[in-house]
Amino acid sequence: MTAREDGRADDELRPITITRHWLDHAAGSVLVEFGRTKVLCAASASEGVPRWRKGSGLGWVTAEYAMLPASTNTRSDRESVKGRIGGRTHEISRLIGRSLRAVVDYEALGENTIQLDCDVLQADGGTRTAAITGAYVALADAVSHLRSTGALKGEPLTGSVAAVSVGIIDGTPRLDLPYVEDVRAETDMNVVMTGAGSFVEVQGTAEGAAFDRAELDALLDLAAQGCVDLTRLQQEALAR
Amino acid sequence: MTAREDGRADDELRPITITRHWLDHAAGSVLVEFGRTKVLCAASASEGVPRWRKGSGLGWVTAEYAMLPASTNTRSDRESVKGRIGGRTHEISRLIGRSLRAVVDYEALGENTIQLDCDVLQADGGTRTAAITGAYVALADAVSHLRSTGALKGEPLTGSVAAVSVGIIDGTPRLDLPYVEDVRAETDMNVVMTGAGSFVEVQGTAEGAAFDRAELDALLDLAAQGCVDLTRLQQEALAR
Amino acid sequence: MTAREDGRADDELRPITITRHWLDHAAGSVLVEFGRTKVLCAASASEGVPRWRKGSGLGWVTAEYAMLPASTNTRSDRESVKGRIGGRTHEISRLIGRSLRAVVDYEALGENTIQLDCDVLQADGGTRTAAITGAYVALADAVSHLRSTGALKGEPLTGSVAAVSVGIIDGTPRLDLPYVEDVRAETDMNVVMTGAGSFVEVQGTAEGAAFDRAELDALLDLAAQGCVDLTRLQQEALAR
Amino acid sequence: MTAREDGRADDELRPITITRHWLDHAAGSVLVEFGRTKVLCAASASEGVPRWRKGSGLGWVTAEYAMLPASTNTRSDRESVKGRIGGRTHEISRLIGRSLRAVVDYEALGENTIQLDCDVLQADGGTRTAAITGAYVALADAVSHLRSTGALKGEPLTGSVAAVSVGIIDGTPRLDLPYVEDVRAETDMNVVMTGAGSFVEVQGTAEGAAFDRAELDALLDLAAQGCVDLTRLQQEALAR
Amino acid sequence: MTAREDGRADDELRPITITRHWLDHAAGSVLVEFGRTKVLCAASASEGVPRWRKGSGLGWVTAEYAMLPASTNTRSDRESVKGRIGGRTHEISRLIGRSLRAVVDYEALGENTIQLDCDVLQADGGTRTAAITGAYVALADAVSHLRSTGALKGEPLTGSVAAVSVGIIDGTPRLDLPYVEDVRAETDMNVVMTGAGSFVEVQGTAEGAAFDRAELDALLDLAAQGCVDLTRLQQEALAR
Amino acid sequence: MTAREDGRADDELRPITITRHWLDHAAGSVLVEFGRTKVLCAASASEGVPRWRKGSGLGWVTAEYAMLPASTNTRSDRESVKGRIGGRTHEISRLIGRSLRAVVDYEALGENTIQLDCDVLQADGGTRTAAITGAYVALADAVSHLRSTGALKGEPLTGSVAAVSVGIIDGTPRLDLPYVEDVRAETDMNVVMTGAGSFVEVQGTAEGAAFDRAELDALLDLAAQGCVDLTRLQQEALAR
Repeated sequence: MTAREDGRADDELRPITITRHWLDHAAGSVLVEFGRTKVLCAASASEGVPRWRKGSGLGWVTAEYAMLPASTNTRSDRESVKGRIGGRTHEISRLIGRSLRAVVDYEALGENTIQLDCDVLQADGGTRTAAITGAYVALADAVSHLRSTGALKGEPLTGSVAAVSVGIIDGTPRLDLPYVEDVRAETDMNVVMTGAGSFVEVQGTAEGAAFDRAELDALLDLAAQGCVDLTRLQQEALAR
Repeated sequence: MTAREDGRADDELRPITITRHWLDHAAGSVLVEFGRTKVLCAASASEGVPRWRKGSGLGWVTAEYAMLPASTNTRSDRESVKGRIGGRTHEISRLIGRSLRAVVDYEALGENTIQLDCDVLQADGGTRTAAITGAYVALADAVSHLRSTGALKGEPLTGSVAAVSVGIIDGTPRLDLPYVEDVRAETDMNVVMTGAGSFVEVQGTAEGAAFDRAELDALLDLAAQGCVDLTRLQQEALAR
Repeated sequence: MTAREDGRADDELRPITITRHWLDHAAGSVLVEFGRTKVLCAASASEGVPRWRKGSGLGWVTAEYAMLPASTNTRSDRESVKGRIGGRTHEISRLIGRSLRAVVDYEALGENTIQLDCDVLQADGGTRTAAITGAYVALADAVSHLRSTGALKGEPLTGSVAAVSVGIIDGTPRLDLPYVEDVRAETDMNVVMTGAGSFVEVQGTAEGAAFDRAELDALLDLAAQGCVDLTRLQQEALAR
Repeated sequence: MTAREDGRADDELRPITITRHWLDHAAGSVLVEFGRTKVLCAASASEGVPRWRKGSGLGWVTAEYAMLPASTNTRSDRESVKGRIGGRTHEISRLIGRSLRAVVDYEALGENTIQLDCDVLQADGGTRTAAITGAYVALADAVSHLRSTGALKGEPLTGSVAAVSVGIIDGTPRLDLPYVEDVRAETDMNVVMTGAGSFVEVQGTAEGAAFDRAELDALLDLAAQGCVDLTRLQQEALAR
Repeated sequence: MTAREDGRADDELRPITITRHWLDHAAGSVLVEFGRTKVLCAASASEGVPRWRKGSGLGWVTAEYAMLPASTNTRSDRESVKGRIGGRTHEISRLIGRSLRAVVDYEALGENTIQLDCDVLQADGGTRTAAITGAYVALADAVSHLRSTGALKGEPLTGSVAAVSVGIIDGTPRLDLPYVEDVRAETDMNVVMTGAGSFVEVQGTAEGAAFDRAELDALLDLAAQGCVDLTRLQQEALAR
Repeated sequence: MTAREDGRADDELRPITITRHWLDHAAGSVLVEFGRTKVLCAASASEGVPRWRKGSGLGWVTAEYAMLPASTNTRSDRESVKGRIGGRTHEISRLIGRSLRAVVDYEALGENTIQLDCDVLQADGGTRTAAITGAYVALADAVSHLRSTGALKGEPLTGSVAAVSVGIIDGTPRLDLPYVEDVRAETDMNVVMTGAGSFVEVQGTAEGAAFDRAELDALLDLAAQGCVDLTRLQQEALAR
């Protein structure tokens, strides 16, 4: 077993920064940083819901994820220029949307839509988990904003969500993988949990060799601890 | 707790049929049926690999998933007509490819590409798990075909893969969900395992309420048992 | 003059199979086989008509044709992945739609739409003529289905349609060309006829050398005979 | 039987004008007019052939058809703006290409490509047949141009092609239909013939009622006569 | 300083031709020629306005520009075939629309839309300025047409617009550049002016070296004179 | 004449901030702020040039501009999701590229490509001029980076470029318009100048009424002064 390049303990998060109100226009906006990974999460609130939901009295929350071309080590092409959205982008957008919707009470939200935009400004592993963690805070701010304008009265948030990546590197389970660890991981897992400690999403992938039940259990333990820490950081940010 | 509509036990698979050599042209082709779910899995083998892999001496395996418009209860629009592939399709294509690649030795495959096409002819829940289970058999046939033509000598398959869905319905964990159960599931999980009993992919999603560790464990147990059964059925089909 | 590879007489159809109710969901569904050519024809019925026809009291029938990637000898790329539908696909979809509409009484159909999906599972020449022949049977089943649900009362079908290919190979007119004959044909013609023996579409193309009136006449005679046989097979299938 | 709105006999062409050298850049360019239908046909010659034909020693001829938005009675949307080419456009482009290739000797053409662009400036029925008739003349000019630059020596044109529409209106077969007749035709047929009087393409469609063999024969006779006239007009234009 | 290839004085326009009523269908249509540059400008009038303007009582004027593939020296690919509109096309379409809207009184136009289509049949420099100059005349004809049908009563045109290119070649400012001069210009400017002599658009670009204020002033003087001449030619054409 | 909402003098820039090295990966990266307008400019350097320039010994510089969905007052749709890039985006990308290329010596750059990505994080008017001003600094950093790695030796930058907007509001010429002024401007002009005081681009548009020569002159004077100030700020940033 070798030490981590950045000197962290195996069960230690990277330095996490959650900066609220980063933009002036959006109802909620957060610049979230997991080490060198920087994601700008903006929540835009609008009256009304998509056509298929009209008249239901229920609200809607959705998300889009994207990476700026220069966010990665080697510049990647713009999806708008290619004219199509890649599978990975689609997959992550859907994951973020599902994760947030797990803590939304649509009835309390009323026929309002909150759209989360998670744009990766700099990528160093864990962009989807940073996005979910930051987007929750932006969502909470957007909900407060809607309440302050009188657009809603109850509490549409039934809890909080946070997410973290875990993986097995050289046989050792590690928390919150930066890019250098991510590419070397034998197994890679993203875990989304509520602030109350339940699972919202568990996505584990054998990158190298298939993993057994004991490894899976170790990864879940590690992720659960990381989500507890992230939940606390979210609450501190929202209390500021 | 209520009985299942189709009378199965909670830990029982639907009737599974694996019909090999369903097409004349493809190197391997399988019509796989999980109850009323029917997926046509075709493996096309070609010399050479994608550009980014040329000269590496390594092979490649990839997959595409799609649903025929009339495969679902209510006809769905053709993605070719819409001019873009939806996020769900992308996501499942990527899952199938990753799952198969987990048991491929690229070096033994040499610079050959095997392309799996999984087209859902009829959908009744579990289309992605049926696709993986059937695609493995088509892949095995394509490998045999390549060996028979002298295109490869070693054994590029390091094992087998099978997949099954599990979910919690009315508080009860159940195996291999048809559509009627899938839409009612509080938690929904797709598990891909090797024939040797290790995990390749674990994807669990809280559809209704978040799930706790005990529920997660129960689902994993159920899925592991289902994959054992599917592995046996794959072996029987390949032995015919 | 050489004998046909499959031993048929020049004016003989390949073995034709018409299997109804191949799918559970669609209002009508047929697996039609012309030798090794297999096309799955599904008819989906829905209330209402396209916008430009609303309030007219008239129904609508339309069709889409596509080939599965592995249906051909050498795998062809998916049109959904390419993001655009090719000219040949467009052309055949339009041909199938026109052919079926030739026997539809829109007023008797009322403001209902029937959408035909013809997906080629395996291609060995004559896919468009097989598609038309099978789609008619699926359409007839969908009409019966609509009548059984009370959605219509009269008879929207004014007749039946069937289609067959003919061509000149080595100077000899032949009926129902498989792929090996199709590529060698000097002239290639697709003929769509009603059960009553009238022409709906005649599309003849000089692939090699231009053809004269006598050759055209011989091909039309051959096609007319083939359509009589196909009409009988359709009626037998519908009587089962 | 009623007289034609424009006073023509049933077997009479509209006034036909073939203006060569309409553009300065293209190797061959023709403004062809069938009555009020105006199509600009430009032939661009370039060294080399598409990738799949390289090294074969054979040339290639291809065509693209399009309509200007304001060419029709009611403005139609631009296909470039819609981002996709419609089925009708595809179909006609393919027809023009096939028709011209019927009189091309690829070996004599050598590895040169001639691209025909047929842009409808004003549409009043028969745009595809006017396009083929004009495109042949532009092609002949492009071939002369190539010969004058020394790019080819032999004669790549084995004959000429011309095309005309015919149809049955109120039970009467008529030649060269303008828009007002086209929309009322029970049966509509486009016929492409060589200057030597053989058929290259025959495309007949029952718009209203299916047609019988006698009607088909009458239409073919009418079209054959029209193509003789058009061939003479092409020759006169090329002789100027 | 060298003489111009076509013998013109530096402040002299190419021969300008403005042919009205070139098409039968469009409300206004003009073939405008600046030397060998030929642009077909068609104005289509329709009742109603785009959705975002409904109920405002205001009209709308918009424009689309495109080049035929064979209009240029070397054939260029069709944007409809490429499936996307290039930046240059977009830019020029927007410029034409803005230029025309500068002389439109939306209130007097009422809820009518006039769509200008400017299709370049032959390109020899200055296509965008020819398009604006011709489109104004087509627009004026469309307005007269609307008035003659009673669709409007007042005068929606508050003036006229014309446009011309200027540039510095070998240090000398020149008016109305053909292609051979355009490619050699150090600075290139397109100027749109009203008939009353005010500026609507000034777009100057340093192609080779940046330009100073004195050069800019000289170009503006030259363009202003050119627009005076073009305005006179527009008025003469409209008076015919 | 009314005072400006933000209290600035008519010829005064908004507070300008140029933060270098904002990203870790890109060869050059700048967060440029013109008041509340924030644009992230990243310069990615790569060996080699586009295909059409290979073997020429010359380098290439290009740019892409885009806005994040939440950067504007009201969220705008993602161009990647719409599947096409809008005309405005295309136009600005091209403007930025041309502006930077005006100060690049391709020979000194050698066969290297520098790609500028200008992503608007927050928009409050003047995004294109902020982008050009920031992109120049990122370009200068990327050039230094290339020199430090030995990829080039000479000086590919022949000068600097900066850009600013000017406009006439209520009859008064003003410098550097924020959104509230931009929407009210009668005339709007973007001016790109070199550090040496020459013009690279002048783009003036009459939004309301056409403008006369005196107004044009006043705007050019104002812009020239603004560019002098911006050039100084660029130099100070690069000196840090």
